[in-house]
Parts: sequence; C-alpha cells; structure tokens
Amino acid sequence: MDDHLAKQVLAGDVKAASRLMRDIDDDVPGALIHLKDLYPHTGHAHIIGLTGAPGSGKSTLLDGLIQRLRLQGKTVGVLAIDPTSPFSGGAILGDRIRMQRHANDGDVFIKSIATRGHVGGLSHSAYGLTTVMDAMGKDVILIETVGVGQDEVDITSLAHTTVVVITADMGDGIQAVKSGILETADIFALNKIDLQGSEATHDDIKMMLSMRRDKMHTWLPQVVRTMALKGQGIEELLLQVQKHWTCLCEAGLENFRRQKARTELSLLFRRLLWDHSLSVLNTNQTWQDMVERVLDRDIDPYSAAAELVRQVSRK
Amino acid sequence: MDDHLAKQVLAGDVKAASRLMRDIDDDVPGALIHLKDLYPHTGHAHIIGLTGAPGSGKSTLLDGLIQRLRLQGKTVGVLAIDPTSPFSGGAILGDRIRMQRHANDGDVFIKSIATRGHVGGLSHSAYGLTTVMDAMGKDVILIETVGVGQDEVDITSLAHTTVVVITADMGDGIQAVKSGILETADIFALNKIDLQGSEATHDDIKMMLSMRRDKMHTWLPQVVRTMALKGQGIEELLLQVQKHWTCLCEAGLENFRRQKARTELSLLFRRLLWDHSLSVLNTNQTWQDMVERVLDRDIDPYSAAAELVRQVSRK
Repeated sequence: MDDHLAKQVLAGDVKAASRLMRDIDDDVPGALIHLKDLYPHTGHAHIIGLTGAPGSGKSTLLDGLIQRLRLQGKTVGVLAIDPTSPFSGGAILGDRIRMQRHANDGDVFIKSIATRGHVGGLSHSAYGLTTVMDAMGKDVILIETVGVGQDEVDITSLAHTTVVVITADMGDGIQAVKSGILETADIFALNKIDLQGSEATHDDIKMMLSMRRDKMHTWLPQVVRTMALKGQGIEELLLQVQKHWTCLCEAGLENFRRQKARTELSLLFRRLLWDHSLSVLNTNQTWQDMVERVLDRDIDPYSAAAELVRQVSRK
Repeated sequence: MDDHLAKQVLAGDVKAASRLMRDIDDDVPGALIHLKDLYPHTGHAHIIGLTGAPGSGKSTLLDGLIQRLRLQGKTVGVLAIDPTSPFSGGAILGDRIRMQRHANDGDVFIKSIATRGHVGGLSHSAYGLTTVMDAMGKDVILIETVGVGQDEVDITSLAHTTVVVITADMGDGIQAVKSGILETADIFALNKIDLQGSEATHDDIKMMLSMRRDKMHTWLPQVVRTMALKGQGIEELLLQVQKHWTCLCEAGLENFRRQKARTELSLLFRRLLWDHSLSVLNTNQTWQDMVERVLDRDIDPYSAAAELVRQVSRK
C-alpha cells in the first residue's frame, strides 16, 4: 500500500488521483483506506448531477456547462457513468470531437466509470470518486448518469443539485411522473426545444411541478429551455444551477449532509463488512464448501447463508 | 411469522404466494426464511429472461409468448421489472388492454416489482420471487427487464435462456456490442421488422455473432425476426427458446447451476449479514451515534465504517 497516495492527491498530483480512482473503481483491496486522509479536505465542491435518457443530449449540455464554468474560472471534475456518453467512451464521432477540447485543459478532470461491477459498486465507487475530486480541490463536480438510479443511493443522494434532461419526443413528461423523477429534480433542462411538442411538454412539466408538494419549501424546481447543440439556454441553466446551490447553502446544508452521511456510512460499512466477511470465509474454504453443499442439495441456500452469517458475526 | 405460508404456497394457494412475494419484495423481516421450505420443491421451471430497451416491443412479445405457452398447456409465471411495461403498470392503454386477457387465466401468474429499492434489492428480490414461482409449479417463468443489469446479478445469471429484443431504429446493434449484450444473449428477437434498416441490422447482428467466440461451444445464438404486434415470428421465437433449453439440458446444467448457486448464496448472505449487523447496531444506538460523529467531523466516514465492522464481526 502506498501511504503517500493521499498526500499526492492533496498536493495536486493528477496521476496519483487517477490511480486512486481507478483502484477505488476496481475495488482494489486497501484502496478505500486512502479516503480516510482525504475526507478532512472535502466539502468544498458543488456536486451537480445531470441525468436523462440516452439521446436526450445531456452530454452536449455537460459540455456546454464545462465551457461556461471554465469561463467563470472554476475548476471542474466530471464523473461520467453513462455508457452512451462521449465522456465515458460511447457516442458518435461528433460528440467525441466536441469533448476533446477539454482534454488539454488541466483544470478539467474527467473520469468515466462503467456501469457494470459488483452489487452496489457503481454507487459506492461514485461516492469514493467524488470524494477524491472534492479533495483535489475541484470547485464543481458534474456527474452524468442515465436516468435515476435503481437503488437507494442514486444521484440525488450524492449531488447537491440534480438536473434532469428531458426532450419532447421521448414521452419523458409522462415517464418523469412514473419514475419519480419529478420528485427528485431540482431543475429540468428541456432540451432540443426545436422539436415539435416542446412547448406542450414545457407546460406539462410546469403544471405537474405546481402540484408537487415540496418538503423543503425553499426551492421551486425550474424548467429551463435549452438547445444544447447551438449553445442556447446553457447560461440560463448554469444560472439556475448556481441559484439552487445558493438557496441550498442559505437554507443550511444540514438535512442534505445528514442524509449523505447516512448513505455514505452505510455504503462503506456494507463494503468493508462484505470484504472482511468474505476474506474470513475464503481463508478456510468455508465459502467454497458451502456452495458445493448447496449444489449437492445437502443444504438449502437460505440455511447456508444464515450459517455463514453465524460464522462471521460476533455473538 | 406465519409458519404455514410455505405450505400454502406449495399447496397452490395463489393469495399466499402473492403475500409472500410482496413481503420478499418489501424486505419484510423474516420473509426470506420461508424460502427455506420452498427450495426443495424448485428446479423444475424453465426461466426465460426477456430484455431490451423501452419501446422495443418486448411487452408485446411477452404477451405473444404467454399465449403460445398456454396453447402448449404450460403454466406460466411472469416477473415484470420494467417500469415502462404494461405488465408492471406502465405503458399505454392498448398494451394494458392486450395483457388483460391473461388476468383471468389461473395458470398465468403475473408479479411486477419496482426497480427502486435497497441496494441489491432488485436482484435479490428477483431471485426470491423466482424461487416462489418455481415452487408454485410454474413450467415457465418469464422475467421482463430493461436492458442488462448494472450489477453482477443481472438477468443472465438468473435466467436459463436470455432473449434480447432489438429493433432497427434504435441503433441497438451498436449498443449491443458496447454494452456486452452480444455476449449474454442466447437469442435475439429482431422486432418491428417492417422498420427500415431491419435487414441491415439483421445482417450486422449475424456478422457480429459469427465473430463471437462461444465458451460453451454448444449453442449458437439465433436471430429471430418478429413483428410482435401482428403475432409474426412468435412461434419461431418460442421454438428457438425451447431448443436452447433442450440444448442446455443436454449439455448439462452443471455450470449454470454452480454459477447460480454462487450468486444466490452471495445475495442471501449479503442480505442476512446486513440485516443482522444493522439490528445489532440499532439496538444500542451505535449506528445513529456514528452518523452524528461523522456529521460533527469527529471521525471520517471510512474510519467510522471500519469501527462498525469491528463491532459486529467475530474476531
């Protein structure tokens, strides 16, 4: 284990940060312990989630946001978890070329991770990677994901501000209601406003938002019309994003921080408990033996799992 | 706890089965223990995964498959995990009406679950629910999901046969390669073959399949052209699905069973370990105290999680 890794990250060593992130994402044993030294240096960054269906144009919006944030002199970290995004290696040539312009900007750090991995690995690693970027001193961290997550630790528990990108042609208005996106979005970016039905979609979302009861009573979700490919509306979008951040800061980040601490502790505990237990069970072949017993129908899977829990748990 | 629940399920009590499934899906404490008595009565069903992007028409295909399976006299269980599916409450009116025809068929059991829930909850509950349907004596269990999963326990580890539904208009051919679908599909249903570009997509998939090296060397993935709305190709699709099952049986289900046992044991162990540990930590307020300490920055989240692991683990 490299004891200096955290120090190097804090000193601004991009290679060290990349290495640590890769190790965290790959679940390399001992990688998470470096977070320990990074935590005291976090809490500065504004974390923004950008979510939407493939094809909604969120990569282009992301690209536009990066540009404008850089013009404001802000340093930017990007975490791309969308497999169709040019930021994470997908998408078509035009998108790829467009994002290339950030490649040589030392103040833009882009990390893409796969959506496949261990159970909880995506969310867990997203938390860890965000911690690293925060400790690197990035002013803003943009996280790009497809849709809202399928588990308790989706983007809204990690990002201060959640932007949901919708378009008129995808029936996203209805999908939004169904999937609970409406409850989680702080800002809607209605993209590709040249599409037919955009105004109707705009009105739909506005109407649905007016019926939403906001628990916080501090922020009324905004709908911003954008045409990302032509750069239209990006400025207004960023303005709303930054307004939301100010509002969140004024209202006190307390609730958000408590929820986040709970989720992060839960994820880390789960991960470490799992690693610890597996290492115990693997040491004495117990795990493999139990799989064989289940295969032989000598024991049912439930009883087998319960027995394994007894073996690793304190009485 | 109801000790008779498992017995009732085995006796064919549909209400009892529904109740158990709901409890499993809701993570009701003690629900999983009923699986213990069901396992000895499982292993009979052919489990078929049907996966594809929203709009690919997989619900309509599913509907057609149910019809034909019923004509063959087979009993059917359906597990719908797709939020846009009419089987799980989404989709448009036409789809809903179409699936209504199965509502009064006692030999078709439909259970839909949300994609949101605890970490690992989706996959975990899918395993448990499949076990219940298997124990109910269903000949075939159809599981409808959106795309391949984001974790280690996706549909291919649960289903004997995985059908991937693609269409020409979604760039799915390229997406398939990118997302690794090509490696996991046993059968492709190329749906909506009246769409322009269908033949080109067909040829693309065929070519890509010819380059795929099959580890098993027993089954060459098939591409079946379908037009689900008109019932075209469903018969051929079912034929290929059943051929794959025969092939799998002949080749010996050993590898598949081992992989599945490992995954299921892993899921159950994780779940029970988590439940047990949380109950220990909640009993003496340790969990809540630790969250507060993290919030006060008295301890970092990593050290806090490690300390909690020490408290619940056997030395």
